[in-house]
Amino acid sequence: MAISLRNFIVGSPLRTAEQVHQRLTKMKALAIFSSDALSSVAYATEEILLVLVIAGTAALNLSMPIALIITGLLVIVAASYYQTVHGYPSGGGSYIVARENLGVWPGLIAAAALLIDYVLTVAVSITAGVVAVTSAVPELLPWRVHLCLLAIALIAWGNLRGIRESGTIFAMPTYVFIVLLMLLILVGLWRWLTGTLRPDTGLAEATLGAQALTTLLILRAFASGCTAMTGVEAISDGVQAFQKPEADNAGKTLTVMAALLAIMFLGITFLAHVMGVVPVEHESVVSQIGRQVFGAGLLYLALQAATALILILAANTAFADFPRLSSILARDGYAPRQLANLGDRLVFSNGIAALACLAAVLVIVFNGRTHGLIPLYAVGVFLSFTLSQMGMVRRWYKLRAGHWRLKAAINGLGAVATGVVLCVVVESKFTHGAWIIVLLVPALVWMFRSVHSHYLDMRQQVSLQDEEVGPWLQFGVAKSHKIVVPLSGLNRGALTALQFARSLSDDVTAVVVDVDTAATERLRETWKVWDFDIPLVVLESPYRSVVRPLFAYLEETDRREPERGLAVVILPEIVPARWWQNLLHNQTTLQLKAVLLFRQERHGAPRVVINVPYHLRS
Amino acid sequence: MAISLRNFIVGSPLRTAEQVHQRLTKMKALAIFSSDALSSVAYATEEILLVLVIAGTAALNLSMPIALIITGLLVIVAASYYQTVHGYPSGGGSYIVARENLGVWPGLIAAAALLIDYVLTVAVSITAGVVAVTSAVPELLPWRVHLCLLAIALIAWGNLRGIRESGTIFAMPTYVFIVLLMLLILVGLWRWLTGTLRPDTGLAEATLGAQALTTLLILRAFASGCTAMTGVEAISDGVQAFQKPEADNAGKTLTVMAALLAIMFLGITFLAHVMGVVPVEHESVVSQIGRQVFGAGLLYLALQAATALILILAANTAFADFPRLSSILARDGYAPRQLANLGDRLVFSNGIAALACLAAVLVIVFNGRTHGLIPLYAVGVFLSFTLSQMGMVRRWYKLRAGHWRLKAAINGLGAVATGVVLCVVVESKFTHGAWIIVLLVPALVWMFRSVHSHYLDMRQQVSLQDEEVGPWLQFGVAKSHKIVVPLSGLNRGALTALQFARSLSDDVTAVVVDVDTAATERLRETWKVWDFDIPLVVLESPYRSVVRPLFAYLEETDRREPERGLAVVILPEIVPARWWQNLLHNQTTLQLKAVLLFRQERHGAPRVVINVPYHLRS
Repeated sequence: MAISLRNFIVGSPLRTAEQVHQRLTKMKALAIFSSDALSSVAYATEEILLVLVIAGTAALNLSMPIALIITGLLVIVAASYYQTVHGYPSGGGSYIVARENLGVWPGLIAAAALLIDYVLTVAVSITAGVVAVTSAVPELLPWRVHLCLLAIALIAWGNLRGIRESGTIFAMPTYVFIVLLMLLILVGLWRWLTGTLRPDTGLAEATLGAQALTTLLILRAFASGCTAMTGVEAISDGVQAFQKPEADNAGKTLTVMAALLAIMFLGITFLAHVMGVVPVEHESVVSQIGRQVFGAGLLYLALQAATALILILAANTAFADFPRLSSILARDGYAPRQLANLGDRLVFSNGIAALACLAAVLVIVFNGRTHGLIPLYAVGVFLSFTLSQMGMVRRWYKLRAGHWRLKAAINGLGAVATGVVLCVVVESKFTHGAWIIVLLVPALVWMFRSVHSHYLDMRQQVSLQDEEVGPWLQFGVAKSHKIVVPLSGLNRGALTALQFARSLSDDVTAVVVDVDTAATERLRETWKVWDFDIPLVVLESPYRSVVRPLFAYLEETDRREPERGLAVVILPEIVPARWWQNLLHNQTTLQLKAVLLFRQERHGAPRVVINVPYHLRS
Repeated sequence: MAISLRNFIVGSPLRTAEQVHQRLTKMKALAIFSSDALSSVAYATEEILLVLVIAGTAALNLSMPIALIITGLLVIVAASYYQTVHGYPSGGGSYIVARENLGVWPGLIAAAALLIDYVLTVAVSITAGVVAVTSAVPELLPWRVHLCLLAIALIAWGNLRGIRESGTIFAMPTYVFIVLLMLLILVGLWRWLTGTLRPDTGLAEATLGAQALTTLLILRAFASGCTAMTGVEAISDGVQAFQKPEADNAGKTLTVMAALLAIMFLGITFLAHVMGVVPVEHESVVSQIGRQVFGAGLLYLALQAATALILILAANTAFADFPRLSSILARDGYAPRQLANLGDRLVFSNGIAALACLAAVLVIVFNGRTHGLIPLYAVGVFLSFTLSQMGMVRRWYKLRAGHWRLKAAINGLGAVATGVVLCVVVESKFTHGAWIIVLLVPALVWMFRSVHSHYLDMRQQVSLQDEEVGPWLQFGVAKSHKIVVPLSGLNRGALTALQFARSLSDDVTAVVVDVDTAATERLRETWKVWDFDIPLVVLESPYRSVVRPLFAYLEETDRREPERGLAVVILPEIVPARWWQNLLHNQTTLQLKAVLLFRQERHGAPRVVINVPYHLRS
C-alpha cells in the first residue's frame, strides 16, 4: 500500500541498467544550461536601482555605467570559462577544477560555496518568479510565500520522478523568454526613438531616499547587479552532455549565451533608465517596463508568464546540480553516504529532498523577499568563480602546452576580476547578510572534514587484517547467555518473548518497571498464580521513566558476573496489522531499543538486543 | 548530552509525588479562566463590522442591535453554565456532561467539537494578538506569520515546563486589560457626551461595499459576532480548581465574567458605532478606537500591549484544555495512549506538542488572517455548547431533585438558543469555511471509534486466560534456530554478528545482496581465503533494493523447512560514538529492521530480529 502510493507519486522503479547518457544538441543545451544565467535579467537591474534609489532619483543615472562595467566583467568571465570548457571536456565544475589543481582545501571551499549557491539559486529564482506573477496579478500578493513553497514542492517532485521526463519541457520557455524580452527591448527602443515612450512620472514619487551618494553605495549597487552573472558557469559543468565534439559545441553555446545575457541585461537597464522607472514594493521593474511598452494586454501577460517560467527553470537547474555535487562529495567521503544513493528512479533522491527543504527554509525565513536574499547570493557565486579560475591558471602552468601563457593570462584576468568583485561584495554587503555566508563557508568546510575523518576512522576501526582473523574464527563456542526480558504486562506478546528467551538460555530474568503500582501488583499476583520458573524483578521508578531504572539494573547485572559478558535484552513487541495502529501504542519499546543500541556501554562491548514480535491479526 | 540539553530547555524531571492540586482564589480564577472569553472583545465587534460593511456604511448601523441580541444570548448561556457548575462540582466539560447523560456518541461528537475548538482558539487568539501588535507597529506587518509562529512556540515551551510556573503570570495582564478597556469605554463615552469625539470620516472611504443588505448577510454578521461568546464554558471545566465551596465560588466568578464580557462587548460596539469606525485591512477596530479616544500616546500603546497579552493568555488556556481532554480521551481508549503520558514535568507533553503543531499549520494555511479562521471557529464552540446543555436537561430530568423543572427549563432554553445559533452559523458560513468543520467532526468521531475498536481488539488478541497458560508454560525446549546474517561487507561488525550467531545455533547462513558487483566479488574472495565454515549466499538485485531480494530469500528458506519455524535474522550494526555520526551511515539496517518487524509474515508467525551492535570508539 505504502509502496504503491509511492510508485504512483514518484513513478515505478528503474533498473540500474536503464541509466544512459543523453546527448544534447546546441539548441537544446542552450535552453537547458542558460535558464539560470538568462533568468537573472529578471531581477539584476532592479537590484541595482533598489540600492541607488536610496540616494534619490538623480543617483539612478548611475545604473547604465554600472551595467556596462558588469557587462565587461561578464565578457572576461565568459572568456575564462570558454577555456575551462576546452580544458575539462569531461565536465569542469569548480569543485573538480579547484581540487585537482589547488588541493583539497580550496576544493572543499569551492564545494561549500557551490552548495550554498545552489540553495540560493532556488530561493532567489523562485521568489523572483513569484514576484513576476504577483506583479501581473496583485491579488496573489498575500499568498507569496505559499506560492513559493508550492513551486519548490512541484520542482522537487518533478526531479524525484527523474531527469529525462523533465528534460523535454526545458527548451520552450527559455526560447519564449528570449524572444519576448528581445521584442520588449526592440519595441521599447523604437518607441523611445519615435518619442512615444514618455517617462513614467507617476511612479517616481514612490520610494525616494535622500541619503548621500557614497562610494560604498555605488559599490553596493554594483555588487547587487553582479547577480546578473550567476549561472554563467553552468555550461562548464555539463560539457559531457553535448554532442561531439563536446568542447567545441559547449564553447559555442557559451558564447551565444553570454552575448544574449549582455544584450538583455543592457537593454533592460537602458529602458529602465530612459523611462525613469523606479523600483516599487509590489511590482517588478521588468513588469513596469513591460506594461508601459506593450500596454497591459496579452503580450504583457505573456512576458510575465515567460519570466516566471524561466525563473522556475533556473531553480530546476539547481535541482540537477546540487544532488550531483553532493553525490560527488559523498563518494569522496566528505558528505553523508546517503547522498550518493541512486533512488528508484535513478536520481539522487536524498540530495533533491535536502535542497528542497533548505530552499523552503530560506523562503520562509526571508518571507519570500528576493531583495533580502541577494546579499547572500553573490558571495558564493564569486567565491567559486575565483577558485575555479585560479585552478585553471595553475593547470596551464603545470601543463605548459601550446599558448599556455595566453591561456593562463586569460584565466588569470578572470581570477583577479572575480576575486576583486568577491571582495567588493563581501565588503559592501557584509552587514546586509553577506556575513552569513562568510561564517557558513568555513562551517561547511569544517563539516566536510569531520565527516571525512569519521569515515576514515571508522574504516580503520572495523577493518580486519588477515593476521588477526584467527581468533575471530573461533565460531561455535556454545555460550550460555544472561538474558533479561523487560515486561509491561503479562500477555501473549510477553509469553512469546519469554519462550524465545528460554529456547536460548537457562539464565532468564523477567523485569518490570513499576510505573503503575496497581498494575505491577496484579502482575506479581498472576506471576505467582501461574507459577513460572523464571524470576521476576520489580524496579522502582519515582520519575515514571522506564529506561533509567532498567539501565541501572542491567549495569548491576553485568557487574555481578563480568566474566560472562553483557546481558542480552529480549524485547517483546506487539506489532499491529496496519501501520497507523503503531501510532496507538506506547513507544517505550522503540525508545528502549534506541537507548540500548546507541548508548556506549561502560565496557565498550556491544549489548545484543533481540526483538520478538507478536503480530496482531487485522 | 541530549538529556541535559532537554533538562535545560524543559526543566529537570519532577517526581510523580510532586503532583499536587493548587486551589485558586476567585480573584486569580477569574484571571485564569476568563482570558479566553474576555479576549474575544478584541475581534468580535470587528468581525460583525467586516460582514456588514459589504453592504455599505449604512448597514453598519445594524451592529448595535446585533450586539444586543448576542448579549441576550450570552445571558442565557451563562445562566445555563451557572447550573452546570453546580451540577458538576468536580468539573463538567462538554465531553463529560454529554457522555454521562446522552451516551457515547454525543460525548464523542462533543469531544471532537472541543478539540477543534481548542486548536482554533489558539490560532484565532494568536493571529488577533499579532494584529494588535501590528496595528500599533505597522513595520512588523510583513512578519505577521513569523510572529504568530514565534508566539505559539513560546507558549508551547512554557507549557512543556509545567503549569505551576506559568500560573503566576496569568493574573496581571487580564486585570490590566479589563482596567484599560473599561477606561477606554468610559473616556470614549465621556468624550462622546461632551462632543469632543468626532466621527472619523477619513477612514470611511476605505473599504466600502455596495452589495444589498440581505437577511443572509445579517445572519452572517450575527454568526461572526457570536465568537464573542467563545470561552464562556471555561469555568465549568475547572470547578475543581476553586477554593471551597467550589461550586459557589465558581458560580460567582462566572457571573462576574459574563457581566464584564457583556459590558466590554457592548461598549466597544457602541463606540465603534458612534465613531463611525470602519474595519480596514491593517489596523484593528479596537486599535482605531483606542488611537482616537486616547490619542496615539502611551495609554494607547498600553492598550494594544494588554490586548496582545490577554489574547496570548487565551491561547494559553487552550494549551491546558486540549492536552487534558485528549488525555481523558486516551484514558477512555478513544485516542492514542501517548496522549495520556505524564511527561517529566508532570504535563501531558504530547498533547501540548500536537496542539502547537496543529495551530501552527492553521496559521500558515490561513496566512495569519484572523478573519479567515472565524467561520471555522463558531461551529465547534456552539456544537459543544448545545450538546452540553442538552446533557444537563437530561440530567435534571433523570435526577428529578428540587426545582428540577426550572433547572431543566433554563438549560433547555440554553440548548435551544445555542442550537439555533449553531444552525445559523453552519448555514450562513457554510461556503466561507464552516464546511470544513462539518466534515471534520464526523471524521474525528470515526477516528475515535477506530482507535477504540483497535484497542479492544488488541486486548482480546493478546490477553491470556488462566486455562490456556498450560501450553505456554513449556519453556526451555532447547531448539536449534535457523539463522540468517545479512552482510554488507567483511569487517569487525560482521564478524561479531557471525560469532553471536554461532553461539546460538549451528545452522547459520551469511547473505549478501549484490548492489555493487566489484565489492561483492571481493567479499566472495575474502570469504574463500579466510575459509569460513559458514555458507555465503549472494542475492541478485536489479533495482538496487536490499530489502526485496532478502525478503524473497527468507521466505524461500522458511518454505524449505516449515516445521522448524521462521528463520531468525541477525543484523550486524556499526554504532558510532557520537549521535550525529549515525546520520553518516547508510540507513539500510534501520530500514531492514522496520520491514522485518512490521511486515506481517505469510504464516502470521513473528520473525525474531537480533541486533548485534559493534561500538566505535570516539
